[in-house]
Amino acid sequence: MSKIKVGVLGATGNVGQRFIQSLENHPWFEISALAASERSAGKPYAEVADWKLGMEIPESVADIEVVTTDPKKIDADVVFSALPSDLALTAEPAFAREGFVVASNASAFRMEKDIPLSIPEVNPEHLGLIDIQKKNRKWDGCIITNPNCSAIMMAVTLKPLLQFGLESINIATMQAISGAGYSGVYAMSIYDNIVPYISEEEEKIQTETLKIFGDFDGSEIKDANFKVSASCHRVPVIDGHTEAIWATMKSNPTPEEVREAFLKFDPGLSHLPTEPKHPIIVRDEQDRPQPRLDRDMGKGMSVSVGRIREGIRYVALGHNTVRGAAGASVLNVELLKEKGYL
Amino acid sequence: MSKIKVGVLGATGNVGQRFIQSLENHPWFEISALAASERSAGKPYAEVADWKLGMEIPESVADIEVVTTDPKKIDADVVFSALPSDLALTAEPAFAREGFVVASNASAFRMEKDIPLSIPEVNPEHLGLIDIQKKNRKWDGCIITNPNCSAIMMAVTLKPLLQFGLESINIATMQAISGAGYSGVYAMSIYDNIVPYISEEEEKIQTETLKIFGDFDGSEIKDANFKVSASCHRVPVIDGHTEAIWATMKSNPTPEEVREAFLKFDPGLSHLPTEPKHPIIVRDEQDRPQPRLDRDMGKGMSVSVGRIREGIRYVALGHNTVRGAAGASVLNVELLKEKGYL
Amino acid sequence: MSKIKVGVLGATGNVGQRFIQSLENHPWFEISALAASERSAGKPYAEVADWKLGMEIPESVADIEVVTTDPKKIDADVVFSALPSDLALTAEPAFAREGFVVASNASAFRMEKDIPLSIPEVNPEHLGLIDIQKKNRKWDGCIITNPNCSAIMMAVTLKPLLQFGLESINIATMQAISGAGYSGVYAMSIYDNIVPYISEEEEKIQTETLKIFGDFDGSEIKDANFKVSASCHRVPVIDGHTEAIWATMKSNPTPEEVREAFLKFDPGLSHLPTEPKHPIIVRDEQDRPQPRLDRDMGKGMSVSVGRIREGIRYVALGHNTVRGAAGASVLNVELLKEKGYL
Amino acid sequence: MSKIKVGVLGATGNVGQRFIQSLENHPWFEISALAASERSAGKPYAEVADWKLGMEIPESVADIEVVTTDPKKIDADVVFSALPSDLALTAEPAFAREGFVVASNASAFRMEKDIPLSIPEVNPEHLGLIDIQKKNRKWDGCIITNPNCSAIMMAVTLKPLLQFGLESINIATMQAISGAGYSGVYAMSIYDNIVPYISEEEEKIQTETLKIFGDFDGSEIKDANFKVSASCHRVPVIDGHTEAIWATMKSNPTPEEVREAFLKFDPGLSHLPTEPKHPIIVRDEQDRPQPRLDRDMGKGMSVSVGRIREGIRYVALGHNTVRGAAGASVLNVELLKEKGYL
Repeated sequence: MSKIKVGVLGATGNVGQRFIQSLENHPWFEISALAASERSAGKPYAEVADWKLGMEIPESVADIEVVTTDPKKIDADVVFSALPSDLALTAEPAFAREGFVVASNASAFRMEKDIPLSIPEVNPEHLGLIDIQKKNRKWDGCIITNPNCSAIMMAVTLKPLLQFGLESINIATMQAISGAGYSGVYAMSIYDNIVPYISEEEEKIQTETLKIFGDFDGSEIKDANFKVSASCHRVPVIDGHTEAIWATMKSNPTPEEVREAFLKFDPGLSHLPTEPKHPIIVRDEQDRPQPRLDRDMGKGMSVSVGRIREGIRYVALGHNTVRGAAGASVLNVELLKEKGYL
Repeated sequence: MSKIKVGVLGATGNVGQRFIQSLENHPWFEISALAASERSAGKPYAEVADWKLGMEIPESVADIEVVTTDPKKIDADVVFSALPSDLALTAEPAFAREGFVVASNASAFRMEKDIPLSIPEVNPEHLGLIDIQKKNRKWDGCIITNPNCSAIMMAVTLKPLLQFGLESINIATMQAISGAGYSGVYAMSIYDNIVPYISEEEEKIQTETLKIFGDFDGSEIKDANFKVSASCHRVPVIDGHTEAIWATMKSNPTPEEVREAFLKFDPGLSHLPTEPKHPIIVRDEQDRPQPRLDRDMGKGMSVSVGRIREGIRYVALGHNTVRGAAGASVLNVELLKEKGYL
Repeated sequence: MSKIKVGVLGATGNVGQRFIQSLENHPWFEISALAASERSAGKPYAEVADWKLGMEIPESVADIEVVTTDPKKIDADVVFSALPSDLALTAEPAFAREGFVVASNASAFRMEKDIPLSIPEVNPEHLGLIDIQKKNRKWDGCIITNPNCSAIMMAVTLKPLLQFGLESINIATMQAISGAGYSGVYAMSIYDNIVPYISEEEEKIQTETLKIFGDFDGSEIKDANFKVSASCHRVPVIDGHTEAIWATMKSNPTPEEVREAFLKFDPGLSHLPTEPKHPIIVRDEQDRPQPRLDRDMGKGMSVSVGRIREGIRYVALGHNTVRGAAGASVLNVELLKEKGYL
Repeated sequence: MSKIKVGVLGATGNVGQRFIQSLENHPWFEISALAASERSAGKPYAEVADWKLGMEIPESVADIEVVTTDPKKIDADVVFSALPSDLALTAEPAFAREGFVVASNASAFRMEKDIPLSIPEVNPEHLGLIDIQKKNRKWDGCIITNPNCSAIMMAVTLKPLLQFGLESINIATMQAISGAGYSGVYAMSIYDNIVPYISEEEEKIQTETLKIFGDFDGSEIKDANFKVSASCHRVPVIDGHTEAIWATMKSNPTPEEVREAFLKFDPGLSHLPTEPKHPIIVRDEQDRPQPRLDRDMGKGMSVSVGRIREGIRYVALGHNTVRGAAGASVLNVELLKEKGYL
């Protein structure tokens, strides 16, 4: 079987580079096109990328000639979008119209009624929105989005807690600087410091989580009805978002019951290439998870949890630009393929 | 009026150095003795202190000959204790027995029934315990303690919220490395990292807060009856603890009402030398308070708050080794003096 | 005596804020005007400054209405320039023409033949250029510049070594992020990292040092004839440049002789308000100087040296935005005033 | 062919963990024994290791029962030693006496006349010392050492410069905190700071380099006769030592000639499993090499160089606990095996 051709939009940025890393040696997909701004177009990727991951640029992409973000210039079935939201707003529909599957990390379309906000381990049934979307919009292709990075980590850990009857969530995030993009945070702003504010992040966590856990009745998503209250903080960590979570639940489980629920969590996706062996890793040490030690678990796709205490309180951690961005989109497309959408 | 002579126990450590800084040029107190371990005794302070604050050792203490932690070797009315708790357990009563006022930053005696856990802006009436303590224990002197650093910051901000009927508190702390003492955290542990655990910190915040806000009926303290649930994290910040706080209150105030309460807060202590002009500073910028920018406000004695949102959620910040340790003890003794206890 | 009125150009930036800090409560000078870009003009300084020093904005400047960089809008005798070099190129002569003394931290005019590159402790005789400059350029005012921050620290320490016959210098700098301005370095670029390159920095150190130590024969400066070879590195430190220096000298002094020369160094400027008690502080501990501990010595105006070893090798350190920028300019103007130039 | 059994001494520490990482899936070697202190003996490695690399403990070692550092308890042909030097002093000869090949990262025996201080790319002929050593000491086994981490990086880059006639070297190092071991540097010491001193480091670089490049005449090593002057600094970087090097050479090559020499450098060891494709990587970007981006090149075994300028000055960088420690020892044993020493 030949591989499915995929393109990356916004290929030179932080998340774009993570897409390339996630797709290197992928058993189902191969990168056939890399798109970036006018300025980079026409040049080999290695020349324009300003590559910032601590590894060499994969040889398979180094010589690819970068193109502009134009459906006509891209020979692929799928495009992964690492575009900023303002550009995504016009570019992503243009691609969907032309028949591409657009797997987007941008926030532009996440809250649209007919567009799935998908996490394969959490709400695979939401893929049903795609048929509705295509019909509604008369698109040959479609858009599928992944949630905000902080929302993803939390959602993966809340899924096995649904059985206990979620009532309300308080979440304090400690978010890595890479989440703001390569040039998003000045060193003078964050060194020996914490910035207790990330633009629109709390709103995203609060609203996206309710859609993620919303009920899909075959025609639309009805928002989940628990409450989420978020407080977001930028911290001097390169990669890996840490989350202190309080989950109030109807059946009032013990910490041990919550731990068991995390351990037993098995979304049955082990046949997807990017799905880690353990989507949730339970750390029993009293001082884990920690971003530098745990962010790369499961090739960056596992969410690690620990310190499960009365409350219920616990700490969750995941790699924000892998599990929370590029890897999340890739996993979404793997699920799409498995379900026959491409 | 000549100044009151004060000694510092544990003078060479992190908090000991902050005591010296807080007491330099103090209008009421002068340092007459510095105590440390056997190893340092007999030598000038400047020689043994391994001074680590970004200023020269004050000349007034540089040549003081360090003594051991022995009441007989110290000519003073007050001793400030920066001892580790295990040493405090025997040393502090020995000093109190000999007639010293012991102002302690250690946790050893904080939860004792007859020993005040004092924050002048919050529970000055708790000083009444001192007479009971002296009678109970037949001490000429006494012990007064200040709470855990994280508990202090929060308590100062909760005081003006009492009027709204506190019901429950969730607090996620992001604590500076200096809080663990100079040698308390390895660089390899915390660089590009967060450690979501600080030994006994959550318990201290949870139990001390209830004593701090306890009702003193003239004979004993009855614990406050709201709930506190803490999640503590060490972050790569040198000084300054940041706290994300959720406060559920009976009368359900708006963020604006909470802001007003913070702004109006005036404990009436402006005649105490260490009391800052504003014990609570309200920051209206959307991204404040921040440790590097706000920890030194009010010479390190102000607690800064910001991001007051529905919930009620807000962010509080204070200097952990000044407001949360040395400065807290000094302020306690200023209050003692003003109230005639020395 | 009433104070001399001074303005600050580029008042909202990193170095502009340091100028305000250096000038607060200055016994000779008072700030009468603050200039910044069009965007800020007409508004109170506190509103537009985005103040980033860990202290409150001085009350004396908070309400000053910011003006544009226009000599007609500024009522002052002196302007301190924290302008970027491209703006300095036209603005500074405009002010000098109108009769202002312009004390500039910009590099635009440093290497001009008739403009002093001045460090009061090193080359006070170079002020003689000012008369030549005024005559040449038919200016009522004048421009005086201070060298590059890294060059200043080194030059202060080389001055007492001149007696040994300097032949060649190798210098490896480890420079703080504040040196690039508030937005000059992205957190993702420097966290857990070193960047072994700072644009034009090595060239400045190499050429400016020779002018600083040049011989002024009453009409022009003849460059010093030793060699300087620099290697510059950005490191994750907020303030304070550290320099590893090798100085080869004709008379081949011992480390002890070099130490003596540093200790005896007295430029006789103690009557200038900003001049620290010790322009050079010798640290005998084996692990000093260190930026976090030593950068604020002498209110940020002392250069600390240590680790004087065979070679001769030693380590020098100073505060880059105080001794290396704002404070350097202020000290220059203090010297000008003392010498009767204003 | 069955694999050669190897043990690791000091297996639980920082460098011990890097040995395990370097040996995982090694085509020639397999770990058969892990030794650590009394306290850890008898327990499975995973239980006692306090594993601190950002990956899971390899399954192949997780269950190995840790033994004490005793030749009788270890079934292997080779032991890799990550022991501290004081323990190495007695333990390593005990192993050599019992017939083990001891590949040591400790400094204890590096400067012994009959013990090779080996870097395969630099001085493979020094292996000849092993026969002399065995005869001298009447050992069945032998000790082979690798140099100090900073010395290794520099030596690899000096090898291709030998042809130009090395006269003298100045080197300023900026060394990562991992080089001091996991608990070697307190966070309070290095955060927002540089420590311009590392105990004995300058001496090691200066003396070891001359032995590394010494001439082996079949019976002994005659030290190289160029001069090395080092200035060592600890910086807030986790892994990766950066070095600013000045190399004065007789034939006075141009930067371009030096670059060519680096590019052409081929020690002919590509058949050794740990040898990277490029032992020296030349970076032509003006701001490289950088530790976070370049330390993992060649699986941590490449030394990256850049900024080759007149002087000759250049910047070198390598992974201190891989190329500079564990990986260096493994490569030494690979060379030993290839040369028939085991």
